[in-house]
Amino acid sequence: MAAPTAARTWRRFSAFTRSPNPHNSGREKRPQQNHASRIFSGIQPTGIPHLGNYLGAIENWVRLQTEYSSVLYSIVDLHSITIPQDPSTLRQNILDMTASLLACGINPERAILFQQSKVAEHTELTWILGCLTSMPRLRHLPQWKMKSSGQNNEGTVGLFTYPVLQSADILLYKSTHVPVGEDQIQHLELTQDIARTFNNNYGNCFPVPKAILSETKKVKSLRNPTAKMSKSDPQQLATVNITDSPEEIALKFRKAVTDFTSEVTYDPEGRPGVSNLVAVHTALTGMSVEEVVHQSRGLDTARYKSVVAEVVIEKFAPIKNEIEKLRADQGFLEQVLNRGAEKARELAAPVHHEIRKLVGFS
Amino acid sequence: MAAPTAARTWRRFSAFTRSPNPHNSGREKRPQQNHASRIFSGIQPTGIPHLGNYLGAIENWVRLQTEYSSVLYSIVDLHSITIPQDPSTLRQNILDMTASLLACGINPERAILFQQSKVAEHTELTWILGCLTSMPRLRHLPQWKMKSSGQNNEGTVGLFTYPVLQSADILLYKSTHVPVGEDQIQHLELTQDIARTFNNNYGNCFPVPKAILSETKKVKSLRNPTAKMSKSDPQQLATVNITDSPEEIALKFRKAVTDFTSEVTYDPEGRPGVSNLVAVHTALTGMSVEEVVHQSRGLDTARYKSVVAEVVIEKFAPIKNEIEKLRADQGFLEQVLNRGAEKARELAAPVHHEIRKLVGFS
Repeated sequence: MAAPTAARTWRRFSAFTRSPNPHNSGREKRPQQNHASRIFSGIQPTGIPHLGNYLGAIENWVRLQTEYSSVLYSIVDLHSITIPQDPSTLRQNILDMTASLLACGINPERAILFQQSKVAEHTELTWILGCLTSMPRLRHLPQWKMKSSGQNNEGTVGLFTYPVLQSADILLYKSTHVPVGEDQIQHLELTQDIARTFNNNYGNCFPVPKAILSETKKVKSLRNPTAKMSKSDPQQLATVNITDSPEEIALKFRKAVTDFTSEVTYDPEGRPGVSNLVAVHTALTGMSVEEVVHQSRGLDTARYKSVVAEVVIEKFAPIKNEIEKLRADQGFLEQVLNRGAEKARELAAPVHHEIRKLVGFS
Repeated sequence: MAAPTAARTWRRFSAFTRSPNPHNSGREKRPQQNHASRIFSGIQPTGIPHLGNYLGAIENWVRLQTEYSSVLYSIVDLHSITIPQDPSTLRQNILDMTASLLACGINPERAILFQQSKVAEHTELTWILGCLTSMPRLRHLPQWKMKSSGQNNEGTVGLFTYPVLQSADILLYKSTHVPVGEDQIQHLELTQDIARTFNNNYGNCFPVPKAILSETKKVKSLRNPTAKMSKSDPQQLATVNITDSPEEIALKFRKAVTDFTSEVTYDPEGRPGVSNLVAVHTALTGMSVEEVVHQSRGLDTARYKSVVAEVVIEKFAPIKNEIEKLRADQGFLEQVLNRGAEKARELAAPVHHEIRKLVGFS
C-alpha cells in the first residue's frame, strides 16, 4: 500500500472531493456572489491522472472555473521536488498534466493555468512568510510527522517548509477561497494564521482565505478497496489511468477485488469493493446510488464490473483522444503554460509590489 | 552586552577580518590568477556602519574589488527580516548602507553592489537547495543553536533556513570564493556540501566555493573592551559611527574604558582597553604596533585617547561628508541599486536557466 507522500499533498489539497461547493450549490454560471472571490488550487505534476484524480480533483476544478470569476490552477512543480524526482520525467509529467487538465475541460481562458516555478514571486513570498512562522508551528502539522516518519523522522527542509510555500501560493494572489479536503484543513489554518500575522505586523494586506469544504469522497484501489487509488500503487491493476486502453480498463475492472456476494449493493463499510464500483458509476453518470443499484438488479458482480468498465471507457475515450493530440503538440502546451504564467504574474505583480513596500524592501 | 543576532551573520560572514587575502597577498591590481574567480559577499542593511564594520568588513571589501575580476556585494535585506524589523527603518537602512559603502570606496563599476531581494532567483534557488538539505544538517549549526536559545530554543523558519539562503546567494553566481570569518566557516561548509549534493544529483553545475580565510580581528566596544563593538550596544558611548561628529568621536574616545596604567602598550589579554585603541590606530594608519607604541612613548592614556580620536576623526571626515551628500540624493542611490540589480540578474540568468533545465522545470 503506498503511503501518502508529499507528492500528493497539493493534489489532495485541491480536493479528492466532489460535493457541490457549499458557498455556491446552485451551479449557475458566474453567480453574483462570487465576483469578488478568487480561488487558488494546486496540483502536483504527476503526469497522466488516474480515475481517482479525475473524480476527486479535476472534475471539481472544471466546475469551479464556471462558478467563480477568478480562478488560478497551478501545476506545483516546486512542491513536487520535496521528494526526489527524475528531471526528465518531471518535465514530461508537467506537460502531461497540462495536456490532461486541458483535455478534461480546464479552460485556460476561464482559469489561469500555470506552472508554479514560472512565477518567481512564490518563493520570495515563501521566504517572507517563513520569517513569520515559528518552527514548532510546522513541526506539529500531522502531515510532516507522517511523512518524515518514513525518513527516520527527518526529511528535508523542503518537505518541512512545504506548507509555507502553499501559504505563499494562496496569499500571493489575495485568494479568498481554497477548495480543501479534510486532510489539508490544518495547512489552510496555517495559511490563515500567517495571513493574520502578516496583517498584524505590516498592515492589512491579505484576505484570510476560506475553505471550500467538501465531503471527501475518494476512489479506492481496485485491488484493495480499503486503500485509496494511487499512482504509486505497485499493483498495476489497482489504478485506472485516463489514457488506459479500453482493454486495459476492462481488464482492471474484471480483476477488481469484490467479495463473495454476487448482488450489487451499496455498503462501503461492509462491502467496500462493490461499493467502490457503485461510487465510480454514480460519479461518472450523475445517477444516484439508488438509481444505480435499482438499474443493476439481477446483475451479478462479474457482469456489473463490465457495466462500470464500459461507463469508464466511454467517459475517458474522448479525453484520452484529446490528451494524445495535445501531447503530440508540445509547443502548444508550452504556449498555454507561458500564457498562464504571464497572467499569473500580472495578478501577482501589484500584490508583490504592495508586500515589498509593507515589509520595507522598497 | 548585545548577544550576536541573525542581523549580523552576513556582515560577519563578509569578514570582521582584515588580514590580506592569502590567495592574493600581493595586492596588485586584478592579478592574473584571479581572472576566473568570482567573489560573493553580503552585508546586512544595518544603516550607517560603525568603526568595527569599517575596519572589519568594508575596508576588506574595498580591497577585494581591486584584487578579483568579478565581485558581487549584496545588501542582504532578505536575511535581515529573520529578526523583526521596522519597515521604514529597514528601507532607510538599505539606503544608508548603500551611501556608506559608496562613500567608503566601493566602486559600483568594479563591484556589483545590489539589494538581494531585487534578484528573485535568490529565493527560488533557496527553495531548490532546501529540498536537498536535511533538517538535522541545519539544526546542528552552532549559530542556530545560539540564536534560537534566545527564543526558547525555537525561532522562526526564516532564522532556521538562513544558511540555505546564504548558500543560494553564493551559488546563484557560481561564486568561487567567499571572504569568511571563523564564525561562518560552518555555514560555508554547508554551502560546499549543498553544491556537491546538487552536482551529484543533477549533474555538474556549481564550483565548490572556497573560503578566503583571514585572521579575525574585531574592534572592541569602547565601554567594554572584552566585547565586540556593536550597533545594538545599549551604551551609546561604546560604538563609534562613521557619521559621528568630531565632538562625539572625541567624547567617546575620552570616555573609553582602559585601566590604571597610564603607559601605552599592546597586550590584548592583559590590557584589552588600551590595546583596542592601539589596534584601531594601526588599522587606520597602516603603521605597525611597534611603530605606534614607539611613537606614543611618554603619552599617558588620556593623551593617547585624543591622538587616536584625532586619527579616527580625520579618517572619517571625508567619508562622513560624502555619506551626507549621498543621503541627500535618494534618487541616485536607488539608481545605483537598480543598476546593480540589473547586472546581478544578468549574471544570474544563465545559471538560473541551467538550474531549471537540470532540475526538470524547463
